[in-house]
Amino acid sequence: MSISGAQAGCYLRATVAYDGTDFCGFQVQSGQRTVQGVLEETLAIITQEQIRVIGAGRTDSGVHAWGQVIAFRTRWRHSLSNLHRGWNALLPDDVTVRSLTEADQGFHPRFSAQSRAYRYAIWNHPMRNPLLQRTVHWVSRSLDVKVMTRAAHLLVGEHDFATFGRPPQGTNTIRRVLCAKWTRQANTFAGDVLCLDIEANAFLYRMVRSIVGTLLQVGTGDLSVEQFAARFAATDRSQAGPTAPAHGLCLMAVRY
Amino acid sequence: MSISGAQAGCYLRATVAYDGTDFCGFQVQSGQRTVQGVLEETLAIITQEQIRVIGAGRTDSGVHAWGQVIAFRTRWRHSLSNLHRGWNALLPDDVTVRSLTEADQGFHPRFSAQSRAYRYAIWNHPMRNPLLQRTVHWVSRSLDVKVMTRAAHLLVGEHDFATFGRPPQGTNTIRRVLCAKWTRQANTFAGDVLCLDIEANAFLYRMVRSIVGTLLQVGTGDLSVEQFAARFAATDRSQAGPTAPAHGLCLMAVRY
Repeated sequence: MSISGAQAGCYLRATVAYDGTDFCGFQVQSGQRTVQGVLEETLAIITQEQIRVIGAGRTDSGVHAWGQVIAFRTRWRHSLSNLHRGWNALLPDDVTVRSLTEADQGFHPRFSAQSRAYRYAIWNHPMRNPLLQRTVHWVSRSLDVKVMTRAAHLLVGEHDFATFGRPPQGTNTIRRVLCAKWTRQANTFAGDVLCLDIEANAFLYRMVRSIVGTLLQVGTGDLSVEQFAARFAATDRSQAGPTAPAHGLCLMAVRY
Repeated sequence: MSISGAQAGCYLRATVAYDGTDFCGFQVQSGQRTVQGVLEETLAIITQEQIRVIGAGRTDSGVHAWGQVIAFRTRWRHSLSNLHRGWNALLPDDVTVRSLTEADQGFHPRFSAQSRAYRYAIWNHPMRNPLLQRTVHWVSRSLDVKVMTRAAHLLVGEHDFATFGRPPQGTNTIRRVLCAKWTRQANTFAGDVLCLDIEANAFLYRMVRSIVGTLLQVGTGDLSVEQFAARFAATDRSQAGPTAPAHGLCLMAVRY
């Protein structure tokens, strides 16, 4: 059931959103509730096929997605809109297929991707915000966004990110960061959410959360921008700050 | 332990936010997890007193609050900021005491209130948004906000709201609505949330959810603005549309 195998039927691509709170990450693991597992189980019910879904990014346990991209082959003979509607009707409340279209034959969600965009969301306030508890990380200490912005700017460009993560097997730690900036986003109820918007050609394992954890040390004054720069330049995993928690992170989009 | 009883100690007022999803409403009920129950249990631990908390509004099961107001008496002898910090440290993730101050002796959270402001939040999109599932109601049918705005405007002023709810014992169904308008609020991730912001001197039981359910019938075209006006004027509970679900509703503020 490899997506590269020659098969009858059609090759489809979907954009998927999920609340990662109650998932053990994207990738199938036996005995665990995973996004891929839930997608495949519901697809099997509607198509009566065993279908392997390939995702653009293997988000960790607790990490959310607004724009995860997946692809799969199916022998489905009816309309795409029927499959889309039926699939969403079977999916639980915490996963939605936002769009479903035919994919080009050469398309691969991971290898065709030009870049991935993540948003890390922070409620920076002395008091916790219970309305944002699932998708936004609470930081009670006051943060200096100006110095965090200067430090984030150092990440832009092609660099060795060894300080901030381990590479997937068989790759190096060089990545190209296209954008790394702090923004303020509204939320539906009250107050602003401070977000790191970061886009790169690819990310190392836990790279965004490690960067956020270290930038937060800059924001609280525990680390100067110069110290941040030195730790980044050290290309030494032990130089990073604590990894920020998974629930603040969301895969926003994958660009092709 | 009535708040009107003469007692040593201080009389305090707090603003409380909560995610109502995992609560059986505000008011204490034996054997159920309620906001009032959790507030009183944690206060008892920190103050070593049995304290009765009075709330401004008895939000239903599943309804959220950003600005619920409570008051209580305590013999607490240390600083308010110590009580505030200690209380929040004991509270679960889904409740926060946003502020804690001394209250005027004559203050009563319910009887002193001039008005209450609620927000009902809707994700109006063909596809569900899993990142908003706890606090925003999903409506997949396309809504005409222009006619919903016209209908909402009819609610403003002093009227008999018998169509939209039952009164608490011993009161009538006349209420004064100060504001009822549809707004678009951003959310932290993507897309706008359509909100009914409604403020009144007081509300009948389930009044906001009944109004929203009926306004949604106007928005989908199932009811004309004229039909909405006639049902409102009928002052007949059976004329209301279906009650909108609790999880879209949030008590935003109580004004004194």
